[in-house]
Amino acid sequence: MKAGFIGLGNMGRPIARNLLKAGHELAVFNRTAQRAQELVAWQARVAESIAQACAAGVVLTMLSDDHALAECCFGEKGILASLPPGGLHVSLSTISVKLAQHLTEHHAQRGQSFVSAPVFGRPPAAESAQLVVVAAGPGEAVERARPLLEVMGRKLFVLGPSAVIANSMKLTGNFLIASMLEALSEAFALAQKSGIQPVQALEILNGLFQSPVYEGYGRIMVEKRFEPAGFKMTLGLKDVRLILAAADGASVPMPLASLVHDQLVSGLGRGMGEVDWSALAQLVAENAGIR
Amino acid sequence: MKAGFIGLGNMGRPIARNLLKAGHELAVFNRTAQRAQELVAWQARVAESIAQACAAGVVLTMLSDDHALAECCFGEKGILASLPPGGLHVSLSTISVKLAQHLTEHHAQRGQSFVSAPVFGRPPAAESAQLVVVAAGPGEAVERARPLLEVMGRKLFVLGPSAVIANSMKLTGNFLIASMLEALSEAFALAQKSGIQPVQALEILNGLFQSPVYEGYGRIMVEKRFEPAGFKMTLGLKDVRLILAAADGASVPMPLASLVHDQLVSGLGRGMGEVDWSALAQLVAENAGIR
Amino acid sequence: MKAGFIGLGNMGRPIARNLLKAGHELAVFNRTAQRAQELVAWQARVAESIAQACAAGVVLTMLSDDHALAECCFGEKGILASLPPGGLHVSLSTISVKLAQHLTEHHAQRGQSFVSAPVFGRPPAAESAQLVVVAAGPGEAVERARPLLEVMGRKLFVLGPSAVIANSMKLTGNFLIASMLEALSEAFALAQKSGIQPVQALEILNGLFQSPVYEGYGRIMVEKRFEPAGFKMTLGLKDVRLILAAADGASVPMPLASLVHDQLVSGLGRGMGEVDWSALAQLVAENAGIR
Amino acid sequence: MKAGFIGLGNMGRPIARNLLKAGHELAVFNRTAQRAQELVAWQARVAESIAQACAAGVVLTMLSDDHALAECCFGEKGILASLPPGGLHVSLSTISVKLAQHLTEHHAQRGQSFVSAPVFGRPPAAESAQLVVVAAGPGEAVERARPLLEVMGRKLFVLGPSAVIANSMKLTGNFLIASMLEALSEAFALAQKSGIQPVQALEILNGLFQSPVYEGYGRIMVEKRFEPAGFKMTLGLKDVRLILAAADGASVPMPLASLVHDQLVSGLGRGMGEVDWSALAQLVAENAGIR
Repeated sequence: MKAGFIGLGNMGRPIARNLLKAGHELAVFNRTAQRAQELVAWQARVAESIAQACAAGVVLTMLSDDHALAECCFGEKGILASLPPGGLHVSLSTISVKLAQHLTEHHAQRGQSFVSAPVFGRPPAAESAQLVVVAAGPGEAVERARPLLEVMGRKLFVLGPSAVIANSMKLTGNFLIASMLEALSEAFALAQKSGIQPVQALEILNGLFQSPVYEGYGRIMVEKRFEPAGFKMTLGLKDVRLILAAADGASVPMPLASLVHDQLVSGLGRGMGEVDWSALAQLVAENAGIR
Repeated sequence: MKAGFIGLGNMGRPIARNLLKAGHELAVFNRTAQRAQELVAWQARVAESIAQACAAGVVLTMLSDDHALAECCFGEKGILASLPPGGLHVSLSTISVKLAQHLTEHHAQRGQSFVSAPVFGRPPAAESAQLVVVAAGPGEAVERARPLLEVMGRKLFVLGPSAVIANSMKLTGNFLIASMLEALSEAFALAQKSGIQPVQALEILNGLFQSPVYEGYGRIMVEKRFEPAGFKMTLGLKDVRLILAAADGASVPMPLASLVHDQLVSGLGRGMGEVDWSALAQLVAENAGIR
Repeated sequence: MKAGFIGLGNMGRPIARNLLKAGHELAVFNRTAQRAQELVAWQARVAESIAQACAAGVVLTMLSDDHALAECCFGEKGILASLPPGGLHVSLSTISVKLAQHLTEHHAQRGQSFVSAPVFGRPPAAESAQLVVVAAGPGEAVERARPLLEVMGRKLFVLGPSAVIANSMKLTGNFLIASMLEALSEAFALAQKSGIQPVQALEILNGLFQSPVYEGYGRIMVEKRFEPAGFKMTLGLKDVRLILAAADGASVPMPLASLVHDQLVSGLGRGMGEVDWSALAQLVAENAGIR
Repeated sequence: MKAGFIGLGNMGRPIARNLLKAGHELAVFNRTAQRAQELVAWQARVAESIAQACAAGVVLTMLSDDHALAECCFGEKGILASLPPGGLHVSLSTISVKLAQHLTEHHAQRGQSFVSAPVFGRPPAAESAQLVVVAAGPGEAVERARPLLEVMGRKLFVLGPSAVIANSMKLTGNFLIASMLEALSEAFALAQKSGIQPVQALEILNGLFQSPVYEGYGRIMVEKRFEPAGFKMTLGLKDVRLILAAADGASVPMPLASLVHDQLVSGLGRGMGEVDWSALAQLVAENAGIR
């Protein structure tokens, strides 16, 4: 299948590589052109512009946030203007429900389709095609995108005709992870002040919960391995802001999301923005007077 | 091994049965004597008093809360007065860190040993000997109790010489479960108002988290199966109170525990005390105006 | 002094009237032109467009929110395009720190000045010129606006050369009021369930705190006089969102603001958006199971 | 009027002195006898025991907490055993609703009366008889105590026949103060990071709120005058614990009280237990990364 691919960051590159390996023909575009060049080894064609990336009528985007995606979509040389009628835009990014709604409407006005297909997983999962993909959009459009989406991950969920609900679902998943970080952080602080070795506490919690999230992040917390960041606190805060915006828009109070938001804001205030968001454990420990 | 066993409620009975099946000789005691009689079929001897249950020098207790355990320990006819010097008391209950500390001291004053060995799991897990047991106390005392503790569950963790840390650990585990209930409840409320079917959301969350807790409680929430209660909201609140008391005593702020506390208090205020504590999902939904 | 005045809502009209009474010559503009006509009786001149309202080189705006003000400022026929170089824009609205920052920059680029002068007080206080005005902006610009600002209220505070800090200060004041509503709501719920008559509790709190805010809102809560709304819950929520956005932007965790946010979101979810924001008391009471 | 007075701490001494000055005949008792001696200059008689302090049939107590009051009431030589039938115990302390309930019952069993009359105000207010007194108990008993209660303060509120509601009311008042501290702390942190001088912010807030509490504590916060403590953070935490216990007992969720609780617990964890509880401002500032 022929498609364009825009956004070759830590997540975009391995995903594009897997699409190429599966035999899809990609025209890849990245603001920093060097990254596009690297994919030539996997038979990618380098697009010189967004328009070239849209030429095949199908384009995937994997950009860092609302701002980057909006910049890439709107304007004279953006995706909306470049895709032909009948074209398809598949967004893999974690973006706000509001932007997803805007894109749905703007693409529809031009006779184009928009599919939201945010992915769960970190760069290593992207590399090994172990992502979980949650897609939503008009049925026909999702089916058209399916051959691309299926080679990215271990599991594809299709949610329904309204693209935004895939974004809601993605934000909800990230919220659950964030809430587990806060819970673990409080648990470790209490354990430590109660005379329990964190590593011992972790072993028991793993025995009890058999949860890969508690296991993975608990290990990082116990070993205080917050750098290099797997997922920076600034990015974690960005996602929690998006979930709160979605919740506010739907008149759903989410006090736990607010709590995590305030903790991450405090983390940024204390200079932890660039370390892994699991450094929440250190922040909670400081709040308990643990040094 | 010969031992007494006091407290034959929903958890105590199956545990006692498993001890008897493993060949231990138990003198069982319960305030409502009828329950003790039922165990005669498994070769239990019925103790007529706490003193008789303590005669063998080793006694296990599985009582519902601080009050019940304290009543059983103190006083002229209580465990402290009845156990011989050198005797051993193994408490399986979820009790406060404070009471565990008192018992440690009072037993020590009388030349007796105290081991805290609270268990994780519900009645069916007790039945099938699938509990997780977390034990702490003087090394020699824990070793003496080991043959009893090992037949109760699938896993025994031994934490160290200070009995109270087993209680802290048990409360910490329950706190993590409570925090997962709050997180799930908020997630479902947002999902529902965003147009995602709860059952669909659950399927995706299971795909992502592979967590038995999310899976089990998420299923109850989706099906609104809050009655009959597996674990009543009043009991959940009791445990969260204990964790907050432990945290306050150790000067550890636990805002997530406080949040769950307030939600459960609200649940009681709204008349949900006797339903399953996962009805938190219904409370959170009501707060979002979902009917 | 000659000036334009845009925005003749519940606050704008009485303020404009007071300016006219003090002898200032105003060209008034409102989207719904009828409201402008009413001020002719006080010698106002009706402006047919934003451009006409800007002709005198000084324009005041009193609009309901960021959206309304932005719409009025940007675009070919907006204030920015209409004010002459050297012109002055005085914004009396409660807007975001972000928009105030944008306006500062855009006006500066055109050689115009921007002063933020949000006001504290409700329509009756505007009527009787009892507002408190908090102004900030370049010194010269604030001095130029002073004759206008001084006739609006009982007190004018001048904060410094950076306009945005007046907006921060306004949001901070509203946050304190919101926090007092939450505190009072919880206090009344506890009082009521403890057997204290709310009116009796109010009398004591007035004796203790001598606070006009507690006194005024406490009275409304005790009498459940939430309609007609003095200040709608939707507007209260809008302001709390702005304070949280300002706090997030400055990396200041404000857990109390988050708490109030979540309560107001719940209020909207439960259908209280159009009643007075002090109906928070009813929401808190419901959460405690009081009917 | 003849009465005993037990508890001559920072509050008890000035209150006792005012009673003596008003012509009442007091038998004063304090664990540290020296403090009782000092009152001889004001015509006090020194009681050698609790029993002697109870001899006149009326006794007032002003002790630091539940523990101190319970110790003084129960036991062979305590107030309950020492007061004659028909005797009256007036408790001025800030104690739990639970203990007040116990005392009500125990006194009633012995044919004695119990009046709760906690006081609002700090030592200087006690000195100048400017306290606010909130009394509750059987009508006859309160009337009997009235001549004593009226000379202590500027205002006496009588709440009704159930003594505990005076304690609830006292705790509620302290909760409101605590909530104002948290609100002010967050406001100052935001102001400071927004470029507003705290002293300037305080001036505006005073202009707006005309609240003695904001004014007094705001001044301390701006000047960072947390030592010597007017009211230690440990004591503030004690009171917030009592309010939460009362709220939990009445099934009233009080998330703002929980928030303040967690902040104060964090304060203790960080070593602020002995400074004034308004040092909450410093804690909140630290959380925002302000040094």
